[in-house]
Order: sequence, then C-alpha cells, then structure tokens
Amino acid sequence: MSLETLSEHACFGGVQGFYRHASATIGLPMRFGVYRPPQAAAGPVPVLTFLAGLTCTEETFAIKAGAQRLAAELGLMLVTPDTSPRDTGVAGADAAWDFGTAAGFYLDATQPPWAAHWRMESWIVQELPQVLAAHFPVRSGPQGLFGHSMGGHGALTLALRHPGRWASVSAFAPIAAPMLCPWGEKAFSGYLGEDRAPWAAHDACALIEAGGRLPPLLVDQGEADKFLATQLNIHRLEAVCRAAGQPLTLRRHAGYDHGYFFIQSFVADHLRHHAAALA
Amino acid sequence: MSLETLSEHACFGGVQGFYRHASATIGLPMRFGVYRPPQAAAGPVPVLTFLAGLTCTEETFAIKAGAQRLAAELGLMLVTPDTSPRDTGVAGADAAWDFGTAAGFYLDATQPPWAAHWRMESWIVQELPQVLAAHFPVRSGPQGLFGHSMGGHGALTLALRHPGRWASVSAFAPIAAPMLCPWGEKAFSGYLGEDRAPWAAHDACALIEAGGRLPPLLVDQGEADKFLATQLNIHRLEAVCRAAGQPLTLRRHAGYDHGYFFIQSFVADHLRHHAAALA
Repeated sequence: MSLETLSEHACFGGVQGFYRHASATIGLPMRFGVYRPPQAAAGPVPVLTFLAGLTCTEETFAIKAGAQRLAAELGLMLVTPDTSPRDTGVAGADAAWDFGTAAGFYLDATQPPWAAHWRMESWIVQELPQVLAAHFPVRSGPQGLFGHSMGGHGALTLALRHPGRWASVSAFAPIAAPMLCPWGEKAFSGYLGEDRAPWAAHDACALIEAGGRLPPLLVDQGEADKFLATQLNIHRLEAVCRAAGQPLTLRRHAGYDHGYFFIQSFVADHLRHHAAALA
Repeated sequence: MSLETLSEHACFGGVQGFYRHASATIGLPMRFGVYRPPQAAAGPVPVLTFLAGLTCTEETFAIKAGAQRLAAELGLMLVTPDTSPRDTGVAGADAAWDFGTAAGFYLDATQPPWAAHWRMESWIVQELPQVLAAHFPVRSGPQGLFGHSMGGHGALTLALRHPGRWASVSAFAPIAAPMLCPWGEKAFSGYLGEDRAPWAAHDACALIEAGGRLPPLLVDQGEADKFLATQLNIHRLEAVCRAAGQPLTLRRHAGYDHGYFFIQSFVADHLRHHAAALA
C-alpha cells in the first residue's frame, strides 16, 4: 500500500497535500487530498471526508472552499477523494461532463464497461480508509462525511448504506433523489442498468423511506441554484425526512448559487457541525 | 464607460462578481473581479485592490485566497484586475508564461509591439478606478493596494510611483528588485527596452533607494518558496528599507511556498492591516 506524494503545501500551520496510490479496488491509480491540521503533528486527529461534485477533482474543495482555516482551529483532518477513476481507456468515458470521468456517483457500477473500474463506493468505504490509516495520523473511531451536489448524494447514500460508519453527515445542495432527476437517471442507467429496481439502494430519499437513518443531518441549499428545480429534489428530501422522523436542519439561502462561493460562505458551519459530533 | 457583467455570485452576504469593460487605455476589453461586502448594499465602502502574479487572472485571488469571509466582516471591497491584456493578436504574446499574456508587470510598455496594449499601470491607476466609481459603491478617499509575486512588485511600484494614491500597501512574496532577477530582466527588456536606465523607475528597491516612500509596509514571505533565492530579492528589500528608514514588517514563514495555500494562511492579517489604515 505505497503512497506517492504529488505535492505538499504548508497551510494554516498544517499541510495540504495531494497523493496517489495504486488502488486495488479501482484497478488504477487514484488520487486524493489530505489536509493535516497542526494538531496532527502531535497525534491522531478525527477525519472529515468531503465528496465533490461533477467535473471536480481531489483539488477542487482544497483550493476553493477555504476550509483549512477552521480545520486548523478545530483539529480536523480534511480528506478529498477524486470523483472517479481517470485514464481508464474505457470508450466514451470522457464523452460527457455528467457521466464517466469525474462523475463516479460514489457507487460500484454493475454494468459493462463501467463495472471494471467505477467502484467508488468500495474505494471510499474500504480501501481509502486503510490507506489513510497507514500513512496519516488518523484517529480511530467516528469520522465525518460531507459533500456537494453529486458528492452530497454520495455523503447521504454512503452514510445510509453503511450505518454507524460515519458519526456526522452534512451536504451542500445534494442530489437528494437521483432516481428522479436527469443526472441520476443517466448515471444509474449507465452504471446500474436500465432496470430501476437496484437504483433505490443508491437514492437518499428512497433509502430514508425504506427505513435508513442518518445522524442529525445539516443541509445548505442556495435558492438561486440553477439546478435546484430540476436536479436536486431538496423539497423531496425535506418531506421524506419529516415523514420518517429523520432529524434534518435544512437552510435555504436566498441569492446563493450552486458553486464554491456558496460553499465557502457556509463551510464553517459544516466543520463545526462535524467537530461537535467527532469531539 | 459601459460594463459587462460576466457572472455574479452571492458570497458571505455580499456579491463576488466578474466584469469586463472596453478599456480605452488598453485598447481592448479588460476583465476584473469585484467582491462587494454586505455593507456595500447600504453605502460606499473602502476599496482594497489585489494584483495577482504570473499566469493568474482576475479570478485567481477571488477563487483561491479565501479573503471574502473577512472582507465581509470588515466591510472592504476587493478588486482583482486581470494581469495583462488578452487576445491581443500580438505575435509571441502567448509564447511564454512569464512574459506577454498574463505577465503585464503593471507598467506601461514603451517598446513595440507591446506598447500598443500593455499599459497596465495607466489602466489600474487611472481608468479602472473611474470604471469602479461609476458602477460600484466605492468610497472616495484612501484605498489599499496589495499583491503577490509579480503583483507584489506591482503593488510596491505603483504605490511608490504615485505617492499618496494608496493609504495602505502590502505584499506576499513580491518580486522586490526586478532589475536583478531573471523574470524582471526578461520583462523589462521586452517592455522597456535593453537600455537599463528606465528600469529603475519600475523597481521597488531602486525607487526606495532613490527616496520613494510607502505607508508602513507589510510583507509575508515563505521560506520554502522555490523562487525566493533567484527571483524575489526579499533580503534586498529588507536592507533597502532599513537603510532608507522605510517602515517594513517582514514576516518569514518556515515551510510555506509561493502559492495560494500560503496566501490564504496569512491573508486575514493583510486585510486587517489595510482595514486599519482605511478606517
């Protein structure tokens, strides 16, 4: 389980690094970012993993979210996995911005040609934590998970599918009901097949309706998000959580859009949400 | 003096926007970013302009520095000009990353073919402030200027060349003596000609030695900056300021490099430095 350091940068008294390892799960090299807060020099610290959205990489959140400042204060390690396998050689993988490369949807594909490498769920839930534990001062015990858009879908569904694995969960503008939106239908059709039956196991709203539960959930949503009406189904998440008794703090923000100027405006509240649960 | 809005994004209760105007000075469209803090909705606010480094655009600082959070708190408008003319049609303008496009060096070129469009000093000192005053709630009176690398050179030299124009000045890892480094020699040879006599009027250390003075200067410098030894001449800035009695707070930071993970780590101190002078 060797690790290649791509770059490391001092940041707020800690280190923002970017790394690559040969993933047995994916069958290809996979990249991720780690922000080690200053406290990590003295001993293990809790881990908070951020799953990014369509078109993003392991660098996006690290560069654009401005989260290291408060992570340094709170003593949180920030982990940012890449959003899909890269350089797969799979025909059509780079044909669209919302499917294939940089669009892994945080699940294990079952359909050819995607099933060979698109195993993001297994990588993030099983292999990556082992790599992190082997190479970074990761505190054992509860960890946090959050994400944005496709990565918000990832945070919700991975936490729902692996109860107890994450002690705190939050999301920015998540794709909350992918079965019911164009992005999700395209992705699930390709990765899971045209039969919709298996889709529900990767749809946050469907999982909550089926009895799945999360730690008290924080969701921020911009009201000027151009994807809100057609792709995100936040109203459905709200209704499903209310009906199921799933604790949800949903904050709607007038004027905010889908991008990282929105995320950076509220990321501090998310870090505090996770730090409180991971203390 | 019409203004084209390229995009606007809610951010920390204010608005991060990107704009373009037809610059009479440059003879081409020029782009810039403006962060309007929440206080700007109620009335004019002081302006702090950031000049970016080689290869950067009007977006770089806005996306990577994480400065809007504190600007919103302090009520500062952040202005980020692009770093050169674009799409000039000048042969060779895109041939190198350290000269031509995205490498304007914040001066008015005197040599063909650059003199026609590379007039960054006049644009930033004269035309852009008029555009800002016409379209944004800019408080009249003192403004602040800072920058990074080539933009640190820009902040120092523009403030030295236009005494009283800026009430506060600071820099991250500035090219402090461009006459004495490869980047500066290349740029000055091209823009100002092989005769070195006119160069001194655009060299911060030479200007201070010749009697130029700045408001009390704040400079942050990473000790792991790979350009420190060959390009920046920070030791010379320190010596020249000491000899001249120019107030300088120079902070050297072990482990920090030349990039925006360094800048974001210390940008809050710069905003506070400027806010105190502009209050």
